[in-house]
Amino acid sequence: MNARDERIAAATERAEPAPPHHEVGTSPALTDGGALEGSAFDYWLLSRLRSFLGDPPVEFAIANGGRVGAGGAIPVARVTFASRATLASITGDPWLRFGDAYSDGLVVIEGDLVRLLETVYRSSSSGGRRGSLLRRAAGALRRPHTNTLTRSRDNIHRHYDIGNDFYALWLGSTMAYTCAYYPSPTATLDEAQVAKMDHVCRKLRLKAGESVVEAGCGWGTLALHMASHYGVRVRAFNISHAQVQYARERAAREGFASMVEYVEDDYRNIAGHYDAFVSVGMLEHVGPDNYAKLGQVAHQCLGGRGRGLIHSIGRNRPEPMQPWIEKRIFPGAYPPSLAEMMRIFEPWNFSVLDVENLRLHYAQTLRHWLALYEAASDRVRRMFDEKFVRMWRLYLAGSVAGFSCGTLQLFQVLFAPGESNDVPWTRAHLYTG
Amino acid sequence: MNARDERIAAATERAEPAPPHHEVGTSPALTDGGALEGSAFDYWLLSRLRSFLGDPPVEFAIANGGRVGAGGAIPVARVTFASRATLASITGDPWLRFGDAYSDGLVVIEGDLVRLLETVYRSSSSGGRRGSLLRRAAGALRRPHTNTLTRSRDNIHRHYDIGNDFYALWLGSTMAYTCAYYPSPTATLDEAQVAKMDHVCRKLRLKAGESVVEAGCGWGTLALHMASHYGVRVRAFNISHAQVQYARERAAREGFASMVEYVEDDYRNIAGHYDAFVSVGMLEHVGPDNYAKLGQVAHQCLGGRGRGLIHSIGRNRPEPMQPWIEKRIFPGAYPPSLAEMMRIFEPWNFSVLDVENLRLHYAQTLRHWLALYEAASDRVRRMFDEKFVRMWRLYLAGSVAGFSCGTLQLFQVLFAPGESNDVPWTRAHLYTG
Repeated sequence: MNARDERIAAATERAEPAPPHHEVGTSPALTDGGALEGSAFDYWLLSRLRSFLGDPPVEFAIANGGRVGAGGAIPVARVTFASRATLASITGDPWLRFGDAYSDGLVVIEGDLVRLLETVYRSSSSGGRRGSLLRRAAGALRRPHTNTLTRSRDNIHRHYDIGNDFYALWLGSTMAYTCAYYPSPTATLDEAQVAKMDHVCRKLRLKAGESVVEAGCGWGTLALHMASHYGVRVRAFNISHAQVQYARERAAREGFASMVEYVEDDYRNIAGHYDAFVSVGMLEHVGPDNYAKLGQVAHQCLGGRGRGLIHSIGRNRPEPMQPWIEKRIFPGAYPPSLAEMMRIFEPWNFSVLDVENLRLHYAQTLRHWLALYEAASDRVRRMFDEKFVRMWRLYLAGSVAGFSCGTLQLFQVLFAPGESNDVPWTRAHLYTG
Repeated sequence: MNARDERIAAATERAEPAPPHHEVGTSPALTDGGALEGSAFDYWLLSRLRSFLGDPPVEFAIANGGRVGAGGAIPVARVTFASRATLASITGDPWLRFGDAYSDGLVVIEGDLVRLLETVYRSSSSGGRRGSLLRRAAGALRRPHTNTLTRSRDNIHRHYDIGNDFYALWLGSTMAYTCAYYPSPTATLDEAQVAKMDHVCRKLRLKAGESVVEAGCGWGTLALHMASHYGVRVRAFNISHAQVQYARERAAREGFASMVEYVEDDYRNIAGHYDAFVSVGMLEHVGPDNYAKLGQVAHQCLGGRGRGLIHSIGRNRPEPMQPWIEKRIFPGAYPPSLAEMMRIFEPWNFSVLDVENLRLHYAQTLRHWLALYEAASDRVRRMFDEKFVRMWRLYLAGSVAGFSCGTLQLFQVLFAPGESNDVPWTRAHLYTG
């Protein structure tokens, strides 16, 4: 038994028995020659899945059962389902149930997981207007919940409070859990995270002595960088208890406790006046119902002057959140289209100065995270269990694929109060000197 | 009689007599000391206008009549209305009728016209959300007409076909009638127009041998620049007969007739496949009802690959067109907010790569145009008449003020088909080498 068969056998052991009604259509007599192995029902299920995914060059199989080839192409990967029941369940709601089955070890991938997902994302994306209308209709039915103060705290707790030690295994030394900026594609993860912070600070044209408020500060890295490299005072808000504790300890250890104040509170409770408003990687958790409120907070903070920057995962057009990611990884999350993001700015007469789409940089960031994660997978397994290892592997690999295929975008939006002329003349200062 | 009094007297001669009902409330007895000269009705009208405009530091007066001071501030300018009837008429619908009265010589400005308009724009802009809601309500009532093929042709004819010789007086040698790009604020108009064309071409990363389609090409300058400096073949569309004739003659004279084809047709009739789609200063004339159609044209032209750029006047939020400009200068025009612009891109899964707001560059461009225009005003008067001279002066000066005060924006939006990874890694190539 080779390694592949061992994995499939191990997965098969855990497979639930197929419900009886799934067996009804099975008839081994209905095979159609070489392209079909196993029962006709297996073949029908596998073909249905493959067709739903836009016929990618991928081989799909059921362990000890049917198989469909890659349609004549060289297969990018082989996906083997532990049982017919597993496959039948996935076929009912692929975007949700594939992730669960993969996490449970009921799906085995031979070949590169990222490449498989990229292939499937590309084949299944239906460009053009019709796809958009269908997606919008789907989006209307699956509208994100409004993130109240309590719901936000629950959502954030479920993702960010699972252990600073866990995140330290694969985020690199900066502990920045947002898209990095690679001045060249060969930059390292840490170099690119520092370059991202400098890119943000230069866009905001921070000057020593100024005050900055940060909405959603993660482990506090950007706030610390702004204080230590740009000489600004920072108040940084976050509702993740574990992150705020980590950030406070690090700022104290590095001697910047007097420059950076980490506040364990919701962005909706930010008060005071500041020279700059910055939010990197929080908007994904805000939800469109609260965008006008977020804009109001920025409006009150800046009071007709100053600069703001919001950095967020986005979309080319409104689309519902990938349901497995929303359910298992990021409850309450929603990446907006640019038009949706404008609901932050338009009610308050903010002027959008600059939008930069960095999606390929996020694909690269995630490749680096995934490599570090795989290298630490034994430690992750000891911290949690095999199911967790597989779940987060799928999330990271799927995110690489989302950004590299363009189903996800990364927008950095620089803005200023509409009445302010304290705006940069050109953007050359970001690239020279 | 000094120059000022002469101008007022000349204006007064042309003033229509006040309708009798405007005289009813007049009672010279109701003066309130030094702040009030002339009748109480004059004072009431002038105060009402001044209050409507947010009490700017401007003196308002009626020729040989009442006057209100600048509220204790040093007045930026004095605005004198030829008669009470002129003022009463303006008070009824200031944004429309002020322009007409100014054009007719029934309003005399002492002081700098641009500075006056900037002062009034600033004082009368009501920031914050309430202003926005009122504006949206007003916008809903004053929805722009849908620009059909015929209506577009009429609209464009009324503005762009009034004489190539006229535009040649003040657009500079490039004949580019769109926002320039000033690498430094001291660049000349011609330098900045060339820099704008290079900025656009570099954003599009044009390579020799590629094909470009241009929607709305003005006098053909950008198309010619792309062909002569970047070695690309260009098909450039425009429905202004006078502009297309000029463009064809220049391309032939400069030896590029085989590289650039000017097509006198509507953007909706563009066909074929191209490496790049570009539209600089046409979107203002398209109207939101046609944005999805414009996106469809770009989608068909690019077919899943290539790059696109749309450059347009815009707004921080949806607002109705300034009614005098819409009526007298740009029929059918409408500058969109960024969210409105997204209606071009979202239905076709275009990915927005880069948005740059160049409004201060348009203020500078317009200052240069206005200076050339004033220097040529005698020739304009001979081509048309005094009313035309004043009308276009007000349009140019008001546009400087609109961009310098932030009531108008200038957005350059770079985009690519969502499935294309042929996108620039960073924007550094725009600024280095």
